[in-house]
Amino acid sequence: MDKTLSVIPLGGVEEIGLNMTVMQYENDMIVIDAGLMFPEEDMLGVDFVIPNFNYVIENRDKVRGIILTHGHEDHTGALPFLLKEINVPVYGTPLTLGIVKEKLTEHKLDYIELVPIKPREVINLGAFDIEFIRVTHSIVDGVGFGIKTPVGLVVHTGDFKLDPTPVDGQLMDFHRFSEYGEKGTVLLLSDSTNSEKGGFTFSEKEVRRSFEDIFSEAKGRIIIATFASNIHRIQQVIDVACMFGRKVILSGKSIISNAKIALDLGYLKIPQNTWLKLEDLKNLRDDEIVIITTGSQGEPMSVLSRIATDEHKTIKIKEDDIVILSAKMIPGNEISIGRIINHLFRRGANVIYEKVSEIHVSGHASKEELKLMLNLIRPKYFMPIHGEHRHKIYHSRLAEKTGIPRSNIFILENGEILEITEKTAQKSGKVTSGRIFVDGKGVGDVQDMVLRDRRRLAHDGILLIIIAIEKLTGDIVSGPDIISRGFIFEDVSQEILNELKVLVYDTVKELDSEIISDKSLLQAKIRSILKKYLRNKMDRKPMIMPIIFEV
Amino acid sequence: MDKTLSVIPLGGVEEIGLNMTVMQYENDMIVIDAGLMFPEEDMLGVDFVIPNFNYVIENRDKVRGIILTHGHEDHTGALPFLLKEINVPVYGTPLTLGIVKEKLTEHKLDYIELVPIKPREVINLGAFDIEFIRVTHSIVDGVGFGIKTPVGLVVHTGDFKLDPTPVDGQLMDFHRFSEYGEKGTVLLLSDSTNSEKGGFTFSEKEVRRSFEDIFSEAKGRIIIATFASNIHRIQQVIDVACMFGRKVILSGKSIISNAKIALDLGYLKIPQNTWLKLEDLKNLRDDEIVIITTGSQGEPMSVLSRIATDEHKTIKIKEDDIVILSAKMIPGNEISIGRIINHLFRRGANVIYEKVSEIHVSGHASKEELKLMLNLIRPKYFMPIHGEHRHKIYHSRLAEKTGIPRSNIFILENGEILEITEKTAQKSGKVTSGRIFVDGKGVGDVQDMVLRDRRRLAHDGILLIIIAIEKLTGDIVSGPDIISRGFIFEDVSQEILNELKVLVYDTVKELDSEIISDKSLLQAKIRSILKKYLRNKMDRKPMIMPIIFEV
Repeated sequence: MDKTLSVIPLGGVEEIGLNMTVMQYENDMIVIDAGLMFPEEDMLGVDFVIPNFNYVIENRDKVRGIILTHGHEDHTGALPFLLKEINVPVYGTPLTLGIVKEKLTEHKLDYIELVPIKPREVINLGAFDIEFIRVTHSIVDGVGFGIKTPVGLVVHTGDFKLDPTPVDGQLMDFHRFSEYGEKGTVLLLSDSTNSEKGGFTFSEKEVRRSFEDIFSEAKGRIIIATFASNIHRIQQVIDVACMFGRKVILSGKSIISNAKIALDLGYLKIPQNTWLKLEDLKNLRDDEIVIITTGSQGEPMSVLSRIATDEHKTIKIKEDDIVILSAKMIPGNEISIGRIINHLFRRGANVIYEKVSEIHVSGHASKEELKLMLNLIRPKYFMPIHGEHRHKIYHSRLAEKTGIPRSNIFILENGEILEITEKTAQKSGKVTSGRIFVDGKGVGDVQDMVLRDRRRLAHDGILLIIIAIEKLTGDIVSGPDIISRGFIFEDVSQEILNELKVLVYDTVKELDSEIISDKSLLQAKIRSILKKYLRNKMDRKPMIMPIIFEV
Repeated sequence: MDKTLSVIPLGGVEEIGLNMTVMQYENDMIVIDAGLMFPEEDMLGVDFVIPNFNYVIENRDKVRGIILTHGHEDHTGALPFLLKEINVPVYGTPLTLGIVKEKLTEHKLDYIELVPIKPREVINLGAFDIEFIRVTHSIVDGVGFGIKTPVGLVVHTGDFKLDPTPVDGQLMDFHRFSEYGEKGTVLLLSDSTNSEKGGFTFSEKEVRRSFEDIFSEAKGRIIIATFASNIHRIQQVIDVACMFGRKVILSGKSIISNAKIALDLGYLKIPQNTWLKLEDLKNLRDDEIVIITTGSQGEPMSVLSRIATDEHKTIKIKEDDIVILSAKMIPGNEISIGRIINHLFRRGANVIYEKVSEIHVSGHASKEELKLMLNLIRPKYFMPIHGEHRHKIYHSRLAEKTGIPRSNIFILENGEILEITEKTAQKSGKVTSGRIFVDGKGVGDVQDMVLRDRRRLAHDGILLIIIAIEKLTGDIVSGPDIISRGFIFEDVSQEILNELKVLVYDTVKELDSEIISDKSLLQAKIRSILKKYLRNKMDRKPMIMPIIFEV
């Protein structure tokens, strides 16, 4: 039989998030990334989602290591949950591991071996020789991988864009990628996030120009919200702040922690006496202040949200304050973000956001960059990753345009296996995959049925009918009492609740003692009579729960 | 005392939607529009929202009539609820009234007098002479108003854009608006929706070019989803369909009803044998078919959604089908829309949407158009309407740029009163205002407290603890039983429910009989012990309801 490499995405090819891919050759397996996803709007009460990685756990003896492309949560957020199950070394660049280390400590996983790898270093994990290749992205120290396997070379781009003028001067390693193209690569896995977007993605440095314009005209304080992990954005704010003689105050746990890690590792450079504390605010003139914080997505407990609703202890909005939301409005968050913008305007601030100014650029390659990557690598087979179905479709159209035949393009769903030999490639079956919901400390104890109940409760609330019945005679001893939650405003709707009581009373009174003595039959009867009544009278479907005591 | 005109927005100045404005002079009152708003994501289970119009009802004797700018639901959707309370004539253009009539019939309000008015006609309502002035918008037959009041002329733009090449050739009535500017207008109320957007909004006709491109290359069926009220969009699809020898099938109740109204009134022109029925589908070749339907916002019960998930009886997606979402992705809907796009791609269709093609234009004026309107009218006072706070801010900045002093610009919240005399203008107090939730047949019976409960239930579900206690001794007669909904998946988490039972049992056992005999004390005790336990153990906060039965 031919030697066969299996490539299995366990997440990230049906969504933005959950990124995790397994590569397997005989008894050797490597895992690339283990990311989380933030819940969609119908995953009520879910804190976040992780991929079902049972397949990895079942093959724990084969796993040689986990390699990470970069430190974003959609690539590393599921790590603690995976590492609780299997103890394997984790390989990543210094900043990526710095961020991961924090998380692992929180989860009491300090014993995990973290191995820092620099770009252009090569590590051997079983059948795989993996070279780390620098890419540019919206977090520093991102890499893709060049992987030597027994069936040929594989390139995984990680999340990337082709920033021609990166803030730290560290270009994407075009030369290494092109070498893989020259040597001949069997499979390319590439980032599909922006495959719908024409042209090139702007350089991170373009944002600086907007900052300079805003700073040059600002009379009061400047408050900037961005992602805590966007070290280059923070660096640019600090640089422009220095240029205009302002001090910088970081506010928020995650942004301070990330900045410290980056500072320690030398990725962030802050001149002396520039980074001050929140307490120093009162000693500074307004035009000497820049506050960097999080909350750009309208998160209700964030510093920015508390500032906007005037619930922040120290920072109170006043006229001449400028607030910059230096981030993308992620779909699904626009309404919360819009509310915060309205609050800030109402309190007198001038608010600058993506829609009205160029204060954000994407970290992902657009069409022209994706085609360039395809042309550099000119792989035999292509698998679009990191996207929903539509992103994979658009990316595969680009691949076709660059000359890859449609039959050599593989659009996989999570869990599907791509088998590659020296001569062939084909889809071949599926391993266990799916989404696991994390809610509080519970992992996997919330499933679809629970979510269905939550949606039902969310939509029309719940109605409890409590009734005590004399078992022998079927007489009503007490009740029916009705308690509702999330159904109607009881103060104004007492009348309806009374009608429901009478309805239940009359129904039970008229029932045969045979039905009454069967608790579940009686419950079903009460439920159906109320359901019908509420549908006709109110067009609503609360959850109806009859609670019957037998005396 | 000086003669005073009061202008009171009851909705639409803190949101997109709910548009409703009252003008009052002594004993005469007119109402401009009465719109609804679709619920925001935290208004769980609410079908839609209407403005609190108690102020109008309390002044029913003064109301001389309701005048409508156009037929969109955010301007007419609250009408049935208002007209149930007060019987006054409604004035609008023929298409607007055609749409309204349908709604009123549904609500058994046929007795309401509907008075069709054509652009440039003037009606007298008490102290007000109102001229209807044509505007262009994303629905045909839209108007603004020129209103002669005892304190001077007032102009209300309605929803507008300056479409230089409207589909029906009916330009906005620049000449009339400019006449009001020439005569001198005391107050302008103008549409702020797109005040953040630079430049000019494209003409509706631009969409036709994209349609032609798509049609010219299409090999199979074309399915187009758009808003049911966008008659011009439908007209353009029909025109292009005819050009390419395709027949048109309308699918969906609202789109058929609107098309019929528009056809009857002459606003829609369909050549003979072009509009076929769904049943004719089987007699046509794929390249002879265009289906126009709704569901462009990802609404789960729409025709498009059913097609996407393969639940539609007649229309099954196949290779070569092209699906066009010819509408804006309204913020808050992107995720549902994205899902539908993914489903359609997965079934083999090619999907074309706002992000990847020019198949939609806005119906609202952008910055340059707004400035032109301000310059045409050159009003003494200016009130931005139709927008959230940020839109009003951006619009008022444009007004300042055109030379209106900041002190003459009035940014009102819902319910605030702007008092205008011949010489002055000032804010002066507030009338009752707010948002009323409509849920099923209930109007106003869902209030903030109910929504708080729904959010709580949605987040972590509910836990019922049922226990029967011997009243005299305090002994547990039966239970505790635990029922949960939306909390955890009981099949895998039976253990936790058992722990909770034991916890309640032990707690009650150890309590003084004094506490046990006080039902509400006992409930509070059980609730607090479970709450603490669940927070520590699971980091969750389900609603906890102890149900105690005393025997």
